Amino acid sequence: MKKRIVILGGGFAGVYTARYLEKLFKKERDRYEIVLVNRENYFTFQPMLAEVVGGSLGTLDSVSALYSLLKNTSIYVREISEIDIKQKTITLSPNFNHTDLLLSYDILVLALGNVTDFRHSPGGLHEHALGFKNLADAFKLRNRIIDIVETAANEPDPIIRKQLLTFVVGGGGFSGIEIVAEINDLVRRLIKGRKQIAKEEVRVILVHSKERLAHKELSPALGTYAAKILQNRGVEILFNTQLISATPSEAILNTGFSIKTSTVISTVPPSANPLIEGLPLIKIKDRIATDDTMQVLNRTDIWALGDCAAIPSKTPMQYCPATAQFAVREAKCAAYNIWASLHQKSPKAFTFKGYGMLISLGHRKAAAELFGGIKISGFIAWVFWRFIYWLKLPKIHRKIRVWISWLLDMIIPQESVQLKTEFHTGIAHLFYTKGETIFHKGDVGNFLYIIKSGKVEVLESSDGKEKQIAVLKEGDFFGEMALLNEKRRLATVRSLEDCEVLALRKSDFQILITQFGALKEQFEKVEKERLKEAQKAILPPLDENTGS
Amino acid sequence: MKKRIVILGGGFAGVYTARYLEKLFKKERDRYEIVLVNRENYFTFQPMLAEVVGGSLGTLDSVSALYSLLKNTSIYVREISEIDIKQKTITLSPNFNHTDLLLSYDILVLALGNVTDFRHSPGGLHEHALGFKNLADAFKLRNRIIDIVETAANEPDPIIRKQLLTFVVGGGGFSGIEIVAEINDLVRRLIKGRKQIAKEEVRVILVHSKERLAHKELSPALGTYAAKILQNRGVEILFNTQLISATPSEAILNTGFSIKTSTVISTVPPSANPLIEGLPLIKIKDRIATDDTMQVLNRTDIWALGDCAAIPSKTPMQYCPATAQFAVREAKCAAYNIWASLHQKSPKAFTFKGYGMLISLGHRKAAAELFGGIKISGFIAWVFWRFIYWLKLPKIHRKIRVWISWLLDMIIPQESVQLKTEFHTGIAHLFYTKGETIFHKGDVGNFLYIIKSGKVEVLESSDGKEKQIAVLKEGDFFGEMALLNEKRRLATVRSLEDCEVLALRKSDFQILITQFGALKEQFEKVEKERLKEAQKAILPPLDENTGS
Repeated sequence: MKKRIVILGGGFAGVYTARYLEKLFKKERDRYEIVLVNRENYFTFQPMLAEVVGGSLGTLDSVSALYSLLKNTSIYVREISEIDIKQKTITLSPNFNHTDLLLSYDILVLALGNVTDFRHSPGGLHEHALGFKNLADAFKLRNRIIDIVETAANEPDPIIRKQLLTFVVGGGGFSGIEIVAEINDLVRRLIKGRKQIAKEEVRVILVHSKERLAHKELSPALGTYAAKILQNRGVEILFNTQLISATPSEAILNTGFSIKTSTVISTVPPSANPLIEGLPLIKIKDRIATDDTMQVLNRTDIWALGDCAAIPSKTPMQYCPATAQFAVREAKCAAYNIWASLHQKSPKAFTFKGYGMLISLGHRKAAAELFGGIKISGFIAWVFWRFIYWLKLPKIHRKIRVWISWLLDMIIPQESVQLKTEFHTGIAHLFYTKGETIFHKGDVGNFLYIIKSGKVEVLESSDGKEKQIAVLKEGDFFGEMALLNEKRRLATVRSLEDCEVLALRKSDFQILITQFGALKEQFEKVEKERLKEAQKAILPPLDENTGS
Repeated sequence: MKKRIVILGGGFAGVYTARYLEKLFKKERDRYEIVLVNRENYFTFQPMLAEVVGGSLGTLDSVSALYSLLKNTSIYVREISEIDIKQKTITLSPNFNHTDLLLSYDILVLALGNVTDFRHSPGGLHEHALGFKNLADAFKLRNRIIDIVETAANEPDPIIRKQLLTFVVGGGGFSGIEIVAEINDLVRRLIKGRKQIAKEEVRVILVHSKERLAHKELSPALGTYAAKILQNRGVEILFNTQLISATPSEAILNTGFSIKTSTVISTVPPSANPLIEGLPLIKIKDRIATDDTMQVLNRTDIWALGDCAAIPSKTPMQYCPATAQFAVREAKCAAYNIWASLHQKSPKAFTFKGYGMLISLGHRKAAAELFGGIKISGFIAWVFWRFIYWLKLPKIHRKIRVWISWLLDMIIPQESVQLKTEFHTGIAHLFYTKGETIFHKGDVGNFLYIIKSGKVEVLESSDGKEKQIAVLKEGDFFGEMALLNEKRRLATVRSLEDCEVLALRKSDFQILITQFGALKEQFEKVEKERLKEAQKAILPPLDENTGS
């Protein structure tokens, strides 16, 4: 029986650990099996992800297939549903069938990184903010921005136009800066070909809680430089401001103001992977505590590294920062220590202190702060940025493809084509603040709404006057009449306070109503009551006065 | 007021009509507006779509952004919800807001093509067969095949492995041949890097209703040649056989046999666009009847061309075939005739007879049959194929990008990376044939099932023996217990006859049950009754004997 080393996670930490382990165990393949589990079949080169949104790299340029990087590792492309450190097993979710897969281990390496998780954020962000963490996010973001610009180009209503052409990014850390720079470049490039949109109509806004960008990662001088570069290109920066919530048409700030927009991107500090949360291991700020050899405290069979681990460090932050630079070095050291633990050798402590920081500002500008205090910025820093990351791309094949993409991008920029795949999930969660209109009389009715929390009012409007005909609360639904009988909304619905609302697609609603007798009865009953009440409130007309 | 010419559809017919109209009306831009409406913001170069699946072209290589092709056309990227030829208006669906858009026209050009529509097909294809028509289909197909191979690589159950590694394509016409060739190449390339899968485990099957491939499009000699090439590369061809249905785990043939598979692709003859169906115009086999100048019969303000039009022709088929070759020529002629009708000139009749046929067989082989009977095949035909289509790519930029992709593919093949975007739609429709197991006792429970038609039996199994404990019919649901209380299925459910079943995702089910009291009551009531009945049928154990 081979001993099995199971690595969970296919980011920098996981993939590089596997690569180093492959080398260390080269002559012992008959005795040790290396296994890596990841939900995607590829490794994402995170630092280049923003370029996928901007379009200077193609969708797949920033990723490499795992099996091509790890020739002697067994790769499982599945979701992990359970980690059992007592039984020493990992349960993998079903894929294309109903059975799950049980994987036992002798040595476990936790390299699960962290996740963008809006669940613990205040209301609205979970429902309406887009994340920017993985390739699917980048893909979605690019397609959405192109879709929005196309829609705006032919939108006659100036208020909706303005809302469509406003883009808000929350968080001015590294990833917030990189993504706002790429979005700004992309949008401004997109409108060049479209006469219908004036340059002045576009607003790209970065909201940052401190008075300087990247206050944690960059020196004051470079932080100020980054802000200036972005502002020169048309990005508005709101300092000392926090993005606290979002609705389908607004970004809401802690200053009491809100911005009309259809696109809110939040680079909130990522949270722990839910799989880590449940593990009975010692944690420091949601990260798994290890000793300086990356062995998990009180365990001899578990190691942790990368963004999910709290590894003691002599840097001012006490623990190693969650960057690719550190993850790769951690992987090398952890792989050695795992090998050492299986060969009765003594482990090495992890002592890397970092080389410095590099940030891309889009459009051939960057800023860098190297170990020892050397600072560079502008075009030279950008060339340096590209060169450094290009060197770090795994495999020569990937290097060539990225190099050609960059070269092509200078001669023939990638076309702004929007790939429409079906993104709609079952039931949508929406969040509205007080006074927002959920729909207007006359709108097209595509959803049934169910109130999860809060109150809304139903308004009958005629001759420019509005009259409240009903107030609906938690558990009530509205919008069903436009789905059942009519195509258009017969009344306006507006929130009376902050509301959480579920939206059920018309087609799904129709299926459910046909299948479930009880549901249909409930709807019909409520319908009758509403008609009665509405009749009392306003007469005539009779058939235009319900909450749908 | 400018006169408005509105073109519906952005395929070969629509885009080329707009291009020719731009030229003809170059000096009259102040008097005429050209408008094109399409649901995507790009034009797909259909003949190269199969290569996107295979990977010799990148995802976006086969498409061009509409605004870059049509500089003087107003482009509306929206779904069309209504065509009103009495009022002379087009209604466009809402996007990012709830209001639709009304567009009036003076001249209407119908170039809506056709759609892959399984709704009129026998049960099962609509639910489980994948189409192959547009870029999203190609994208989905490629990602799914990669996902399947990754899953198969670590599947321990040999029956599921076999099912996963079997791919069935229905229809041996042009697109069926092209797609089966690319899928076969892709799958065989994918397994090369994976030691866990033996070459012999892969089956790629083409099902064709006649005794010769492409019996309509190619001569007997070339049809036979195409079949031989495919068979040499490992494709199994079932002649005189029809794909009539599909389930989540089977392709069902008209011969009474079925094939265990998770991937069924159907290239069924496309049907009319639903927008065309409703129009009060004369139709011939679902296509809009025109005269030989492409003006719609009995209308002076509507023109139709491309796949949605029945244009009289002197070819043996009486009407122009639905190919790109014809669409482009039709566009030129139609554009001239529209211009002529607005300038009191006489229109021209469309007389093009076609140059011949070209088909790619994957992996550097093709077959061609030119006007006058010249036939070429093999590598030379493939070079010819690429050259001809490359020449026809719009714009020099696209030509260069495709050329570089092809070049790169020879040196560094594209990596088999699977882009996971969220594909799940609200409620899934499933189809099972008699005797199929919907889930087994012990499976992971992720869905609630509702029977739309047919009957299923619930089986309690212990010690290898199965005992029927309930029969469920139309309107009944099952699987709720694994969702409400337990993680795993407590019984096996099998179909007693052909069944249509709806599957509601666990997360959606939980939302609905929380929100709708009546629904919850209905579930609880049924639950109690089932427990009682199950108790009668089998005792003990009491708590493992329900239909979930």
